[in-house]
Amino acid sequence: MSERVVTAAVIVIGDEVLSGRTKDVNINFLAKGLTEIGVRLREARVIPDDSATIQSVVDECRKRHDYVFTTGGIGPTHDDITAQAIADLFELPLVLDPEARRRLVDRYGEGHLNEARLKMAHVPQGATLIDNPVSAAPGFRVENVFVMAGVPMIVEAMFEGFKGELSGGDPVLSHTVSSFVMEGDLAAGLGSVQQRYPSLSFGSYPYYRGGKFGVSIVVRSTKQNELAEAVEAVRQLIRGLGGDPIDGERT
Amino acid sequence: MSERVVTAAVIVIGDEVLSGRTKDVNINFLAKGLTEIGVRLREARVIPDDSATIQSVVDECRKRHDYVFTTGGIGPTHDDITAQAIADLFELPLVLDPEARRRLVDRYGEGHLNEARLKMAHVPQGATLIDNPVSAAPGFRVENVFVMAGVPMIVEAMFEGFKGELSGGDPVLSHTVSSFVMEGDLAAGLGSVQQRYPSLSFGSYPYYRGGKFGVSIVVRSTKQNELAEAVEAVRQLIRGLGGDPIDGERT
Repeated sequence: MSERVVTAAVIVIGDEVLSGRTKDVNINFLAKGLTEIGVRLREARVIPDDSATIQSVVDECRKRHDYVFTTGGIGPTHDDITAQAIADLFELPLVLDPEARRRLVDRYGEGHLNEARLKMAHVPQGATLIDNPVSAAPGFRVENVFVMAGVPMIVEAMFEGFKGELSGGDPVLSHTVSSFVMEGDLAAGLGSVQQRYPSLSFGSYPYYRGGKFGVSIVVRSTKQNELAEAVEAVRQLIRGLGGDPIDGERT
Repeated sequence: MSERVVTAAVIVIGDEVLSGRTKDVNINFLAKGLTEIGVRLREARVIPDDSATIQSVVDECRKRHDYVFTTGGIGPTHDDITAQAIADLFELPLVLDPEARRRLVDRYGEGHLNEARLKMAHVPQGATLIDNPVSAAPGFRVENVFVMAGVPMIVEAMFEGFKGELSGGDPVLSHTVSSFVMEGDLAAGLGSVQQRYPSLSFGSYPYYRGGKFGVSIVVRSTKQNELAEAVEAVRQLIRGLGGDPIDGERT
């Protein structure tokens, strides 16, 4: 049976991430969340608040992947240009969505719904709203492009809300084995194990703890039996080098 | 006098970042470091350990920017393929560098310099070594492409070592003003300030502290006098809304 592979890209939109002012945490959150539901994150990009760049990068990614997730640039100020850029990309008018407006009225009260806040109720015509239980202003989806806010708490809430609707492929199972063996001593044997199991992925990540070097080997497969066999081969390799393999990351 | 703009891209190479196992911190470190020396980070990308992808993304970025910085994939194991990919991209043979070998001998001793470790002394022919004071194995530079390890401590040490050789443009100066004013109330006025100073950048970043909403406005310019004038305009805007502007981020 052939594997079903579903891929995605994450696009972080924000000058503040590129200037170093803001440390992005959305890529890691979405990477973990997508991996859990069997969607493979194939690329993540950080781009500036520039309409032409947003349009070209989103267009490139939506053609290449099953899903595209953007974060950032859908607030009330002049530098929030993502919604208009996505509308332009899809050649759709940006329109006031009555349901989005209703949610903002519920939140702020009719009297406080000024023009800037109303901007957050505008979406490309025909877009599906993405719920925002944190601060009401919705994200939206057009075809395979999911447009979210940049604030991590809102990204998390939005993703939890719609992830059940994403169709994942075969989830990638992984198992980690760690040991205080030096990566350079393990490398040759690990290369042989990789050759014995060509369809599996073996990642090697060195660490340094309490004055000693060690390495974590992450084995990945969509098949549980293959995974277990390959993990045992890694354990034997470590023992052969005088190491003591433990399951999981060494923390 | 026209502005001198020097741009860069950061490329993080690693399946472990895309799977969510590892939280990247190199993008933020490099973003801050580049901003400080007047180099503008225009894009950051996270890509898998795949030779064709590494080659095409590095090629695209090196043509588009003054500098490209990669992190990850130059260790001793089979999944460390960055050096070979960069050699292939530049159509150079990957060769044993005598100076790199000497550094590894100093570190590990001749008797421990197995084939896997020797791999870390191979660079594209003619490449310039990048010093690694942390763990000896060097990075390297080919034309405008700087190839570094993935371990954050090593990235930091490598960057500190060569950043003096980078030629920056006019540094972008920035000043932040924060206040407990809601972003949606400030938005219209901020848009007007942006129109009055079209060549400056005004970023608006909402926050939530101690049960209250506030917003930080980051003003950026390469000219100190313009910056000071625009910052004062933002302060007045905040006072006009009944807010109390403070300099810097509200923490």
